[in-house]
Amino acid sequence: MQKDQGGGAPATPRLRHRKRSNEVPPDVGKANESHFLVDDQNKYRSMWIRAYSSVWMIGGFVFTIYMGHLYIWAMVVVIQIFMVRELFNLLRKVHEDRQLPGFRLLNWHFFFTVMLFVYGRILSQRLVNTVTLDKFLYKLVSGLIKYHMVTCYFLYIAGFMWFILTLKKKMYKYQFRQYAWTHMILIVVFTQSSFIVANIFEGIIWFLLPASLIVINDIAAYFFGFFFGRTPLIKLSPKKTWEGFIGASFTTIISAFVLANIMGRFQWLTCPRKDLSTGWLHCDPGPLFKPENFILPGWVPQWFHWREIPVLPVQWHALCLGLFASIIAPFGGFFASGFKRAFKIKDFGDSIPGHGGITDRMDCQMVMAVFAYIYHQSFIVTQSLSVEMIMDQILVNLTFEEQRALYMKLGEIIQERLFGET
Amino acid sequence: MQKDQGGGAPATPRLRHRKRSNEVPPDVGKANESHFLVDDQNKYRSMWIRAYSSVWMIGGFVFTIYMGHLYIWAMVVVIQIFMVRELFNLLRKVHEDRQLPGFRLLNWHFFFTVMLFVYGRILSQRLVNTVTLDKFLYKLVSGLIKYHMVTCYFLYIAGFMWFILTLKKKMYKYQFRQYAWTHMILIVVFTQSSFIVANIFEGIIWFLLPASLIVINDIAAYFFGFFFGRTPLIKLSPKKTWEGFIGASFTTIISAFVLANIMGRFQWLTCPRKDLSTGWLHCDPGPLFKPENFILPGWVPQWFHWREIPVLPVQWHALCLGLFASIIAPFGGFFASGFKRAFKIKDFGDSIPGHGGITDRMDCQMVMAVFAYIYHQSFIVTQSLSVEMIMDQILVNLTFEEQRALYMKLGEIIQERLFGET
Repeated sequence: MQKDQGGGAPATPRLRHRKRSNEVPPDVGKANESHFLVDDQNKYRSMWIRAYSSVWMIGGFVFTIYMGHLYIWAMVVVIQIFMVRELFNLLRKVHEDRQLPGFRLLNWHFFFTVMLFVYGRILSQRLVNTVTLDKFLYKLVSGLIKYHMVTCYFLYIAGFMWFILTLKKKMYKYQFRQYAWTHMILIVVFTQSSFIVANIFEGIIWFLLPASLIVINDIAAYFFGFFFGRTPLIKLSPKKTWEGFIGASFTTIISAFVLANIMGRFQWLTCPRKDLSTGWLHCDPGPLFKPENFILPGWVPQWFHWREIPVLPVQWHALCLGLFASIIAPFGGFFASGFKRAFKIKDFGDSIPGHGGITDRMDCQMVMAVFAYIYHQSFIVTQSLSVEMIMDQILVNLTFEEQRALYMKLGEIIQERLFGET
Repeated sequence: MQKDQGGGAPATPRLRHRKRSNEVPPDVGKANESHFLVDDQNKYRSMWIRAYSSVWMIGGFVFTIYMGHLYIWAMVVVIQIFMVRELFNLLRKVHEDRQLPGFRLLNWHFFFTVMLFVYGRILSQRLVNTVTLDKFLYKLVSGLIKYHMVTCYFLYIAGFMWFILTLKKKMYKYQFRQYAWTHMILIVVFTQSSFIVANIFEGIIWFLLPASLIVINDIAAYFFGFFFGRTPLIKLSPKKTWEGFIGASFTTIISAFVLANIMGRFQWLTCPRKDLSTGWLHCDPGPLFKPENFILPGWVPQWFHWREIPVLPVQWHALCLGLFASIIAPFGGFFASGFKRAFKIKDFGDSIPGHGGITDRMDCQMVMAVFAYIYHQSFIVTQSLSVEMIMDQILVNLTFEEQRALYMKLGEIIQERLFGET
């Protein structure tokens, strides 16, 4: 989500000055939101705290990117666990929980079941590509894949029965609400982070570029709002301003175009990863990453030196990602703000100094990752890639005899069509 | 779910005598639940109302089965719409809704988006198989499939933004709760009914057998409970008894074994359907439906005429389905009972006289359908079927050039492995 654009003194001195500290008592927020967003003494301190932890986060992030796909995945899992923990605790009532021994454990049972289901799938496909030479391992992994779904199903059913058998009189409503809440959390967090993981293996750029755009949009919105912010944007987040929103949009779209050109030059970022090794990547990155000359239109001013510039085709796609990151993804943040107001929560947690909880920083990332995945699947996946995907399926799911049967059958169909066409 | 096993007079004469009419005031239920479940005057009238509507439902059901896959699918969709309507209305507050114009519409917007997503996918794959001969149609359908996901995504995002932009002060909590509730309903109803539709196209038997087993288990539990019920089974549903549960289990498992033998003889029920036509089906139903001689063990009594009986292998699988239908699926019913108690609801609706709402009759069906699908995928899909599935994918998703490329590549891999082995 967009970081808030400064503004608004804390309601009382006792409140730690933190992001959204004035969102909770809406009347206080209302008093401040109107005119003098630019003039505020406290916001400088707040800015430095945020900047400090931001630098650490960005540093760790860059290091992880350098380490490779598996480490990025691990990072996603860690973030996910923190998010889920924050969200599980959000609607928890200590008094009720004390009367329900093991009820928190049930949440984590569901968590690990879903984790096994989502990641087991991704992992096992990569694993097959890694161990494909060893016959025994190959069979073992194929077997695991075959019974993966039914295993997860029974783990889930076990949790379901556990829930029903521990329903306790007078606690029904609390228990059902918690059950629904647990499921909502798991669905939201896991569908979205499984998209992130899918993006990573399609080529790090499909994860890195969208994620960077959100961060850039956040930071740009913060600074534009900080220095120019006057007009409030939306009632849900009184600190956000139109100036921040528009300034950030331009910054993000331009950055997208430039970043795609830079990232597109590294095979480490552009090649897909089909197995689970962490070694160096070499591939033909395909036409998307080969420079083409783009002739500038006539209205470009005379003093501009070049008439033609080399552009990677991926840069045009990056523009779409930039547009989405700056215009639609912020709604993820509005949604989170609204949710926090509805349930009178300041932040989802306090894991990151100056930022609030991990969830507070991930809301727009989630929306963005899903878009990046769907955009990639719909407009980018080249033909050769989908051949490879089906090839993977054939090698993973079929026995050797079946592969031969398929081969024969396909041969017949191709023959038939060739014959029919000539 | 198991129908309640009779028992318990209505709390007051004013209450219509309906299933679970004594579940709502828990103290009344408690007074009745204990000993004399067998002796009750009113339960006969209740039984006849139920029997009457049951006969109509079963009749309509059989007719739909006879009409074919598309009609069964249509039936599932209709049931689904009714269920969703019942559930949408359940937590609705008229007073709040009046202040939020268009808020109910948003629910249905999400409903149709999910519908387009789930069924568009299934439909389009079948459609390709139906129109594969016409080149133009083939391209049109392939195009629709390609942009199907991104279309649904933007429809969803539109709803998401609509929700955020219509958030109204002081209504946040109600709106967020409704949003979560809408999503829970859609996820539960659609994941499960998409499994049902998938089962139908795998061969009607994979839908019909599980569904019948749930109905049989319901009816058997009702009668066993009605005539022998004494020992209460679970606090959540005071009308359910151990006698009903155990009697129903035996009945269901035996029925499963017998029914599978009967259904397994009709190609209309056993053949998968790959396209959208409604014509007659012919196929080689495979070894699962070819009778094998089963030699009865020595302890079978002497007066039993046969030493060997012909058994279709599918009957052994049917036993597993029967076990699940009678032991685990009822938990779907317990869950629904618990939910109704938690939110102090009598029934989910009143669409079916004597039964309550459609949702009241579908709770166990949903649990069962998912199991049937996963069981089928994990233990039954024969090798030739999965070859066919991948073949479908190749024909649907790849251009002719890609198909040839795949063919070449597969040929190389097979050559390589053959060479490596000898």
